[in-house]
Amino acid sequence: MSLAIGLDLGGTDIKGGLLDEQANILARHRIATEADGGPDHVIDRLAELTGELLKQADRGVDDLSAVGVGTPGTLDAKSGVVMAAPNMRGWTNVPLGPQLSAQLGVGVQVINDANAAAYAEYWAGVGRDPSVRHLVFLTLGTGVGGGIVLDGRVFAGAHGAGAELGHTIVEPLGRLCGCGQRGCIEQYASASAVAAEAQRRIAAGAPTTMAPKPTCEAVFAAAQAGDATAADVVEQATEYLGVVCVGFVRAFDPKLIVLGGGMAHAGPYLSDKVAAAFERRTWRMRPEQVRIVLAELGNDAGFIGAAGLAIERVSEAGVEA
Amino acid sequence: MSLAIGLDLGGTDIKGGLLDEQANILARHRIATEADGGPDHVIDRLAELTGELLKQADRGVDDLSAVGVGTPGTLDAKSGVVMAAPNMRGWTNVPLGPQLSAQLGVGVQVINDANAAAYAEYWAGVGRDPSVRHLVFLTLGTGVGGGIVLDGRVFAGAHGAGAELGHTIVEPLGRLCGCGQRGCIEQYASASAVAAEAQRRIAAGAPTTMAPKPTCEAVFAAAQAGDATAADVVEQATEYLGVVCVGFVRAFDPKLIVLGGGMAHAGPYLSDKVAAAFERRTWRMRPEQVRIVLAELGNDAGFIGAAGLAIERVSEAGVEA
Repeated sequence: MSLAIGLDLGGTDIKGGLLDEQANILARHRIATEADGGPDHVIDRLAELTGELLKQADRGVDDLSAVGVGTPGTLDAKSGVVMAAPNMRGWTNVPLGPQLSAQLGVGVQVINDANAAAYAEYWAGVGRDPSVRHLVFLTLGTGVGGGIVLDGRVFAGAHGAGAELGHTIVEPLGRLCGCGQRGCIEQYASASAVAAEAQRRIAAGAPTTMAPKPTCEAVFAAAQAGDATAADVVEQATEYLGVVCVGFVRAFDPKLIVLGGGMAHAGPYLSDKVAAAFERRTWRMRPEQVRIVLAELGNDAGFIGAAGLAIERVSEAGVEA
Repeated sequence: MSLAIGLDLGGTDIKGGLLDEQANILARHRIATEADGGPDHVIDRLAELTGELLKQADRGVDDLSAVGVGTPGTLDAKSGVVMAAPNMRGWTNVPLGPQLSAQLGVGVQVINDANAAAYAEYWAGVGRDPSVRHLVFLTLGTGVGGGIVLDGRVFAGAHGAGAELGHTIVEPLGRLCGCGQRGCIEQYASASAVAAEAQRRIAAGAPTTMAPKPTCEAVFAAAQAGDATAADVVEQATEYLGVVCVGFVRAFDPKLIVLGGGMAHAGPYLSDKVAAAFERRTWRMRPEQVRIVLAELGNDAGFIGAAGLAIERVSEAGVEA
């Protein structure tokens, strides 16, 4: 049986796991990224983590069929080059895939991190039931990321630029987004947007039990505890999520819409509200067949999906180590 | 070489064509639907048109590998049953595919009409260049229909209910749609919506050269001739189309967005305005790679796509006549 390593590269730390083809985790570990050291140093760190995972499970590189690295930013999946990664110094046109592959002596697949998380939920998480072949994944964190699995495969569009669901326009004349558009869902329903909206209302004198600069988590906690201002902020965000979910269902007709990222720690309180907003706004012609659910794999999704996609791509290419 | 017949079933007439596998049209004809006669009569009419097309080209049923019928309404593509067709009397759970197949003695594929038109533009129209594998098609008529081709295949979702792009929400608190939702793009950018908006403005006393009850075509003609009220109505519709195109590009990352249906008769005046609205609203992070273009096949798209999809499905099923 061939094994794969999945690595989830973040600005602060790198999470990794050694998995078999049934998504069993044989070893797992996390180390600091040390991004200040620059790309070469970070690639050394990725290689170190790979070695540590193999050591934990008493395996060697020869046992690996592939290594997958989930990365933020813009990348060319085919060549394995990271074109730009906003939160890591010096990451412009870094040949991450080829360089790490040369160091390790095994093929390396470089994968968009949101696609990796979406694939993980399909392969081993809330969508693992074989009847689920289509899902839409939203990660609600600093921004809003998207991943799409159609008929069991990650969908990335004609130029690899699809599934940027956080930049779906939900208010035509709405808030300016960092991407240059107006009214992106990211400006209304990311964890940052929820925190910022609560902070605006508190600064404007809204009555609340919340501390002056609440995090998204604090806003959800206050809302659940009965704070009307916090509840209204949550309501606004989940209403907008309901609106974009209608669009995703009209377009993709998935079995599941999966909510992940930091905001998903709010649990069913979040997913029930989004599902209710979706139901209120959707059509009456026939019952909807989609379910809006929470992601199951949490912070592990990134490395699990990177391993799963690496296995898939290697087996498709017919390259077996 | 095997041939296919495509039939485009509408409430008023049935258009049909006999095509080869390279999308060459060997015969074409149109007859009245006579929908008042009920489903059995309409199925007889489909069979008559098939006979007429074969006669024109001096061919027989044995020359056919498949017949495809593009139909409006809700259908089960697998069984060939039309569950509901809003504009035809008595069309509830009609086994169109099996019944026509038994009459003709050849396999019949029943196909959603917007999917057929989308596939036609991919196979033989504006998207026929082999470099185009992904396109999004919008038909702007009485309603707004959608069709999606991903990697050369019609995409319909997990339950066959995808690509309902006319019911993408573009104004969260907007106009009530016939489907039960609020703010669907169909309420802002269908030909009917454009005509209704102009009529509202005229009734409210807006200065205009338009006659009291203009059609969508008349609104576009007046706008092009310099009528400010008409131009403003067109501007509103094309702005909203720009907004939904942003969402389609973020989600699907297609090579082309194809505008068809009655409104597309306005030509480049329409597509240039939609493309400009899209460009104004899209992000600045990197250049967009999509082109927003007019459909090329006009009223022929329905039967061409029905023939093309019938050929594709029969060859996939390995059934060759």
